[in-house]
Amino acid sequence: MSRTVYVNGAYLPEEEATVSIFDRGFLMADGVYEVTSVLDGKLVDFQGHAIRLERSLKELDMAQPMSTEELLAVHRELVSRNDIVEGMIYLQVTRGNPGDRDFAYPPADTPPTVVMFTQNKPGLADSPVAKTGIKVISVEDLRWGRRDIKTVQLLYPSMAKMAAKAAKVDDAWLVEDGKVTEGTSNNTYIVKGGTIITRELSHDILHGITRAAVLRFAAEAQMQVEERAFTIEEAQAADEAFFTSASAFVMPVVEVDGAQIGSGAPGPVATRLREIYLEESLKAAI
Amino acid sequence: MSRTVYVNGAYLPEEEATVSIFDRGFLMADGVYEVTSVLDGKLVDFQGHAIRLERSLKELDMAQPMSTEELLAVHRELVSRNDIVEGMIYLQVTRGNPGDRDFAYPPADTPPTVVMFTQNKPGLADSPVAKTGIKVISVEDLRWGRRDIKTVQLLYPSMAKMAAKAAKVDDAWLVEDGKVTEGTSNNTYIVKGGTIITRELSHDILHGITRAAVLRFAAEAQMQVEERAFTIEEAQAADEAFFTSASAFVMPVVEVDGAQIGSGAPGPVATRLREIYLEESLKAAI
Repeated sequence: MSRTVYVNGAYLPEEEATVSIFDRGFLMADGVYEVTSVLDGKLVDFQGHAIRLERSLKELDMAQPMSTEELLAVHRELVSRNDIVEGMIYLQVTRGNPGDRDFAYPPADTPPTVVMFTQNKPGLADSPVAKTGIKVISVEDLRWGRRDIKTVQLLYPSMAKMAAKAAKVDDAWLVEDGKVTEGTSNNTYIVKGGTIITRELSHDILHGITRAAVLRFAAEAQMQVEERAFTIEEAQAADEAFFTSASAFVMPVVEVDGAQIGSGAPGPVATRLREIYLEESLKAAI
Repeated sequence: MSRTVYVNGAYLPEEEATVSIFDRGFLMADGVYEVTSVLDGKLVDFQGHAIRLERSLKELDMAQPMSTEELLAVHRELVSRNDIVEGMIYLQVTRGNPGDRDFAYPPADTPPTVVMFTQNKPGLADSPVAKTGIKVISVEDLRWGRRDIKTVQLLYPSMAKMAAKAAKVDDAWLVEDGKVTEGTSNNTYIVKGGTIITRELSHDILHGITRAAVLRFAAEAQMQVEERAFTIEEAQAADEAFFTSASAFVMPVVEVDGAQIGSGAPGPVATRLREIYLEESLKAAI
């Protein structure tokens, strides 16, 4: 069945959903995005994603295309029209279509392009992969210097994902100056002696919405958290490893560059945090 | 008058030229491009751009969408249909439309997206700006690590261009580890004691087609060339500065970060190289 997607105010069959070839999202990667999960037909941490979208737009001097309330209404309409019980909603905002190509930004009153679509993922919460954990390799982090802005410049994460596939593992952890920054589309963590270690926020990593929630839940559960960068060697010697993202929630990592982490199975901290996150997110979903 | 543009085999009025919202060029900046200049209705250094396109595609494991001969035919058809005497032809190839969003590449047989359009620029060769020179500021280079691949990840160069505009100058020179990499969309040069100094080729800079031609002409004219990185301070103390690009050819730079270069007017080396480049390019244009 064809999805109904949203493009600049219109609900369209996905086959008819297009943008101009002059759209700055297409010509210049001049756009930002958010992915919000749907559980039980409701939006997980919608407010967090709306706030981060606002920040990304602001950092790039892009206008807000609509209010948070309007954004929420479109999200809900798409969930409803596409019968999404578990899945994701993808939202992209670009600096619009100036009608030609130029490095300089178009006039500020150029209407932004807003695109939204759903991805149906039954079984998203009860993922079998979360029960066995995933394997990663490390890859040099060659991305641009403002990873805190959630732009569509995703070519390098795609390349890293393909390097992981070629190595017959699930994902890649990106390493800069000897330290892990993050995964291809997620924040990374290790656990050592009961302490959860994850890189501190800066321009080097995405300020994960799921990261913020998980660290809050960890603190509430009296877990120790240390925000600092760590090496691949530290990860390999850790008791546990995991990553967080809006669509994978909390995902145990059981192998890094061929070295087994801890027992080689999901550890208690990652497992517990996944349970808490899913439980609390479902409760708070709107 | 509306341009006729090319999208995946069709010649269309520009208003009707669209791509799917699922195109990887739009969602992931997974695309490469070339800009070829037109002088006297003919293509400048077409072969050089075709070879670089091939290299960019190969580096990203993307398929060649068409042969060089077919590409040339479309270029010529667009020049003809749009009556271009002086201007540019923009070409973009993306990894196509897989019908959904995924970091992993789509199957290798997914047809690439090919978009081409003209930009009419009467007076391109006889640019008044080339007679006075341009001013630049320096900006930290925050781009990704594979600038030798000509991808559409152009958000940061756009941001740098806007920083230049805000500073009331014409362009920005990007600086990494204390050395100039290149301009927002051009290769950079200084001249000191008769020697032309320009950064050596690596993953740090675009392998300019105009750069290669200009260095060849410089050698033929018995000018000394030194390929090495230089600092902003060296540029400020230089006798001349200039940049090269496919659409600006050789462009004198007369101010860097507020400091006048040499006499503050285009120098003899840049002026002579521009003359030679235009003369030879016109002769060789096809």
